[in-house]
Amino acid sequence: MNSFGIKFRFTTFGESHGKAIGCVVDGVPAGLKIDEEFIQSELDRRRPGKSKFATARKESDKVEILSGVFEGKATGTPIAMVIFNKDQKSRDYSNIKDIFRPGHADFTYYYKYGIRDYRGGGRSSARETAARVATGAVAKLFLKEFGIEVEAGVVEVAGIKAKKLDFKYARESEIFALDPSVEEQQKEAILGAKEAHDSVGGAVLVRARGVPVGLGEPIYYKLDAVLAEALMSINAAKAVEIGNGCEASRLLGSQNNDEITAEGFVSNNAGGILGGISNGEEVIAKVYFKPTPSIFQKQRSIDIDGNEVEVELKGRHDPFVAARGSVVAEAMMALVLADMLLLNATSKLENLQKIYNA
Amino acid sequence: MNSFGIKFRFTTFGESHGKAIGCVVDGVPAGLKIDEEFIQSELDRRRPGKSKFATARKESDKVEILSGVFEGKATGTPIAMVIFNKDQKSRDYSNIKDIFRPGHADFTYYYKYGIRDYRGGGRSSARETAARVATGAVAKLFLKEFGIEVEAGVVEVAGIKAKKLDFKYARESEIFALDPSVEEQQKEAILGAKEAHDSVGGAVLVRARGVPVGLGEPIYYKLDAVLAEALMSINAAKAVEIGNGCEASRLLGSQNNDEITAEGFVSNNAGGILGGISNGEEVIAKVYFKPTPSIFQKQRSIDIDGNEVEVELKGRHDPFVAARGSVVAEAMMALVLADMLLLNATSKLENLQKIYNA
Amino acid sequence: MNSFGIKFRFTTFGESHGKAIGCVVDGVPAGLKIDEEFIQSELDRRRPGKSKFATARKESDKVEILSGVFEGKATGTPIAMVIFNKDQKSRDYSNIKDIFRPGHADFTYYYKYGIRDYRGGGRSSARETAARVATGAVAKLFLKEFGIEVEAGVVEVAGIKAKKLDFKYARESEIFALDPSVEEQQKEAILGAKEAHDSVGGAVLVRARGVPVGLGEPIYYKLDAVLAEALMSINAAKAVEIGNGCEASRLLGSQNNDEITAEGFVSNNAGGILGGISNGEEVIAKVYFKPTPSIFQKQRSIDIDGNEVEVELKGRHDPFVAARGSVVAEAMMALVLADMLLLNATSKLENLQKIYNA
Amino acid sequence: MNSFGIKFRFTTFGESHGKAIGCVVDGVPAGLKIDEEFIQSELDRRRPGKSKFATARKESDKVEILSGVFEGKATGTPIAMVIFNKDQKSRDYSNIKDIFRPGHADFTYYYKYGIRDYRGGGRSSARETAARVATGAVAKLFLKEFGIEVEAGVVEVAGIKAKKLDFKYARESEIFALDPSVEEQQKEAILGAKEAHDSVGGAVLVRARGVPVGLGEPIYYKLDAVLAEALMSINAAKAVEIGNGCEASRLLGSQNNDEITAEGFVSNNAGGILGGISNGEEVIAKVYFKPTPSIFQKQRSIDIDGNEVEVELKGRHDPFVAARGSVVAEAMMALVLADMLLLNATSKLENLQKIYNA
Repeated sequence: MNSFGIKFRFTTFGESHGKAIGCVVDGVPAGLKIDEEFIQSELDRRRPGKSKFATARKESDKVEILSGVFEGKATGTPIAMVIFNKDQKSRDYSNIKDIFRPGHADFTYYYKYGIRDYRGGGRSSARETAARVATGAVAKLFLKEFGIEVEAGVVEVAGIKAKKLDFKYARESEIFALDPSVEEQQKEAILGAKEAHDSVGGAVLVRARGVPVGLGEPIYYKLDAVLAEALMSINAAKAVEIGNGCEASRLLGSQNNDEITAEGFVSNNAGGILGGISNGEEVIAKVYFKPTPSIFQKQRSIDIDGNEVEVELKGRHDPFVAARGSVVAEAMMALVLADMLLLNATSKLENLQKIYNA
Repeated sequence: MNSFGIKFRFTTFGESHGKAIGCVVDGVPAGLKIDEEFIQSELDRRRPGKSKFATARKESDKVEILSGVFEGKATGTPIAMVIFNKDQKSRDYSNIKDIFRPGHADFTYYYKYGIRDYRGGGRSSARETAARVATGAVAKLFLKEFGIEVEAGVVEVAGIKAKKLDFKYARESEIFALDPSVEEQQKEAILGAKEAHDSVGGAVLVRARGVPVGLGEPIYYKLDAVLAEALMSINAAKAVEIGNGCEASRLLGSQNNDEITAEGFVSNNAGGILGGISNGEEVIAKVYFKPTPSIFQKQRSIDIDGNEVEVELKGRHDPFVAARGSVVAEAMMALVLADMLLLNATSKLENLQKIYNA
Repeated sequence: MNSFGIKFRFTTFGESHGKAIGCVVDGVPAGLKIDEEFIQSELDRRRPGKSKFATARKESDKVEILSGVFEGKATGTPIAMVIFNKDQKSRDYSNIKDIFRPGHADFTYYYKYGIRDYRGGGRSSARETAARVATGAVAKLFLKEFGIEVEAGVVEVAGIKAKKLDFKYARESEIFALDPSVEEQQKEAILGAKEAHDSVGGAVLVRARGVPVGLGEPIYYKLDAVLAEALMSINAAKAVEIGNGCEASRLLGSQNNDEITAEGFVSNNAGGILGGISNGEEVIAKVYFKPTPSIFQKQRSIDIDGNEVEVELKGRHDPFVAARGSVVAEAMMALVLADMLLLNATSKLENLQKIYNA
Repeated sequence: MNSFGIKFRFTTFGESHGKAIGCVVDGVPAGLKIDEEFIQSELDRRRPGKSKFATARKESDKVEILSGVFEGKATGTPIAMVIFNKDQKSRDYSNIKDIFRPGHADFTYYYKYGIRDYRGGGRSSARETAARVATGAVAKLFLKEFGIEVEAGVVEVAGIKAKKLDFKYARESEIFALDPSVEEQQKEAILGAKEAHDSVGGAVLVRARGVPVGLGEPIYYKLDAVLAEALMSINAAKAVEIGNGCEASRLLGSQNNDEITAEGFVSNNAGGILGGISNGEEVIAKVYFKPTPSIFQKQRSIDIDGNEVEVELKGRHDPFVAARGSVVAEAMMALVLADMLLLNATSKLENLQKIYNA
């Protein structure tokens, strides 16, 4: 249950304040060039501690490849990567050792497993997403071989919506904002909440270009369904839309259908997916993140014995998780597409004939 | 890829206009009473042809259990169920034999598989959901043993939103409306579109009560993530929200966090899920459906040779798919919860000791 | 747990004396010609009631395809096949209703599931293998496209061993004997046991020719390991050998290694598999079957309440199951190879480039 | 494909001469005490370099737990373990860089993946089994909670067979011999082969005691079938028997059936498994290993360009792999049983009621 994907399959491990986090990626086709610097650069994008909009926790997030690569290429064997935890500061958490923080998984993990790993959320911490980003970087290298590119950015902060999408700009923005014209406002919302010891939510748009027709396996491994699963599995995600999403439900069929001409689809309300299968247009999804549950105000809660308590968190937390969520969303879409690309390879007899009857 | 679930796992088969559709359900615990009448009654709820708000296509949808049940009880072996197709009318589709219908999966199936099964959408038809409902009925019988109940209804039609949720009323409503006070308006929207040879979208709310704490497997088989996958896999679904969904992203942390007292959670913005695991509150999800792509107006499209054509569909189609989608959403949530209940059984050593060390 | 395979994946259902048995085959590449007569002919080979060496139970075993085939070709959607049970004779079993038959699964199914489906072994009956043979026939059609052929025959009966392997002869032999020179002796052993109300065991050799180099996924989906699983899952199987099997353990390395020349391997002790991956030689495996547990002599046993009883079976049973096991073993090897062929398609980047970058 | 198990599921990674090997174990029930010393002691049993009967390669095999354990107990999150490679000596292999060693996986890996990782067999090396033993140790700790114990030993060397089974003795024997009365002879066979620059094969018997009735999932995850897969996946394994194995095929039904009395089964020809499900008796399996393919004699082979060459290996290799195979076989059986124990927990409704309705 710590694995994802069928053919391009990865497993992650590690807790927020344990020795290390890491991943094992299985199914990477042999011969793929593995660019370690690129993997590290992706991790650097996700890494916190870089601006006032994110947690001050400093993680060097130096990734080390333990296996699966020989002379710069994937060998077809599992690629294991590990990131040793440096900045663990377990003492930060001693004051909430027996208390369930509202909005956190403390409560549910405790009742599910009967164990309270109080060190910073343990496995449920967003720290785990570093392992996803490392894996996603491998997926991106793979997709690049087929001209597929995945990009993301923040499309909404505290209800302040982007009016245009500039993915290039988002890469440079401190909050991965897609629209420079509303970025200041969005930043103010974040800082305002931070100053009030509060937090804000937001939304991320992720898209893939160059996706060939045919990715996605009906009926229960549809591209949109698996994207929804992948994106909803990111910490703090509460909603996922494909294409025009909720909006589609308010249009007429005659408005929402994407007509087709010899040049291709006239519009892309579908977000590049029809019947769970990619149609060659841009694949587009949005993820909505709740505000960071870690806030520095008094909140009512209970301890592990059921006694009512007042919690007041200390420590370092993102006032706005969606920014880093944007990097993770990119990774997750890349991973889904990589898996779907492999799965689709055997959909038709003629594909197999190209490989085996040559 | 035509299977779903890990321990409570089902596989469906069959095309819209083939001989039969059906399913095989594996992992049903032995000893569960299998109430065939209940299964049939669930299918009857989904069945079209009952009102002017749905397609006139008549399917008797009589389900037959082929295996896995002995003397009224599940034996632990796979339960196969089959529904033979009666009302096939393949001729309805001859005029669109080589044409891709906008908004449909014709295009993507053709390019993925190299085959054009033009008979009513083939496998991509919503007809497949009858098999889901049959399976979901078994899941419901199972959940009932543990006091878990899943209900759904239509919460929005063409932008007209329910203001209250009356699940009991929804069961009687022709369009499964949750709010009688807006039902008329919603019905008018549907009929208006129908008369204009058009269609409307809508949204469904599905909830489960009685869910114990602990269901959901982190990190990649989270309850919310798998619900998102399950619901997004329903035909025409374009967005899924958990709890307050998109709205959460517009709140402050101090507004969105659900505080906890000795009596339980004070609010349920989370939709009953924290860190991917159920917290004992109602599990709540919403699915947004696009308007039916089958409309009876002229649309631009292409044929399988890439020639531009004008399509004008004939036949019988739902002007509003979300109503039946509501029954399917219930089935899907029931299936996810049944699977999670089985998976969670082995989360703690003490659970296993209850079974084996007695 | 009633499914097998990863990409070429099938699920079977049905009990010995239920309404029907059947299977759903997922992952068959679209475009494959599905020859229904061939599938039926494979079932006819397995079918009992044809000679005095097999049970007199008459099963017409008429297979019906319910889905997944359109105009004679696989569409890429699941192929469901069903065989309705005709000759059920449930009354045959009433005398052993509460009794565990020695050597049978009655005992273990009862304690595992808490249910006694006494009708001829229920799910544990060899009747289930008809569904495997139907599925295996589809796998054979698929393999044929790549020049791969799977054949099997009886290599040993009651310790009487074949000295040569004539697969063509085996197809005509009433007991699927591979060596006509010992067939008479083998038949006598069977009839001798039958007359003594007893039964005999035997072994089957199954081989595949034309297998390309590269099939098999290390480390835990090795071709030999999965073949072992597949063959050991056949009713009454007690041992599986690959290549020279047990014999290899008694040779020196210098005797057992297969040297290589420019023309290929000098010998095939390995049975066509090195490191879990096919090496281009014939893939060879042997399965050993215990004697049919159903014998018509008095045996000591207990009933479901733990009381000691004396059992004396009545009814119709094979005195020698390995003959039909030979047809099933062929099916299982074909299924494993089909799955491995699909899985291997994505092992190298260059394979994928052949498909996607054309 | 580098993973095994469904609920107790592990993934291994790493190559013979890479940075590290390791594993991630998922599904370990929370609350299980994790005894690190025991895990290390199991690795020490497998570790080579300890006697003249095994390779002189020295591996310290120091295991490090990276995650999943908190205050000495499993937390329910994945347990990652890593063993850094110390004694890599890549230069040993330079002389065979482009050559396929007979009996090795060099040939098949090269053609499957298009890459020649010549460093000591890379992923196909038996070095990977250290990761299995570490994982198996966790499985043993788990099984111990339920009174299940798995033991193994060498039952045959170069055709010299044990006449009795003394598992306690085997733990102390340098070659894990089960029968002290033939051990000397067996050792001589090994040393004789070693002196002749050759190698010998052998067989291992592995058994489990205390296994409850009911483990094993029909039809395609049978206990015996999965054991066969698990054991056949060990390097150099060529045959697997369950219970009396091949011998069963030479007996009459009346000889082979295990009769039942109120005290239990009268005999155990079945090896503790009926219909793929454990029957409460000892679970018994045998694995046959081919002689080590690495011999120090001249052999014919080809290089990666297809040119004929004469190979003469240098380096350090076991003349007899079955001894260490015995420790690995134990691990594999423990892993299979742990998985089956978890899977079986949900077989009956009443089991679930014990957990949820308490």
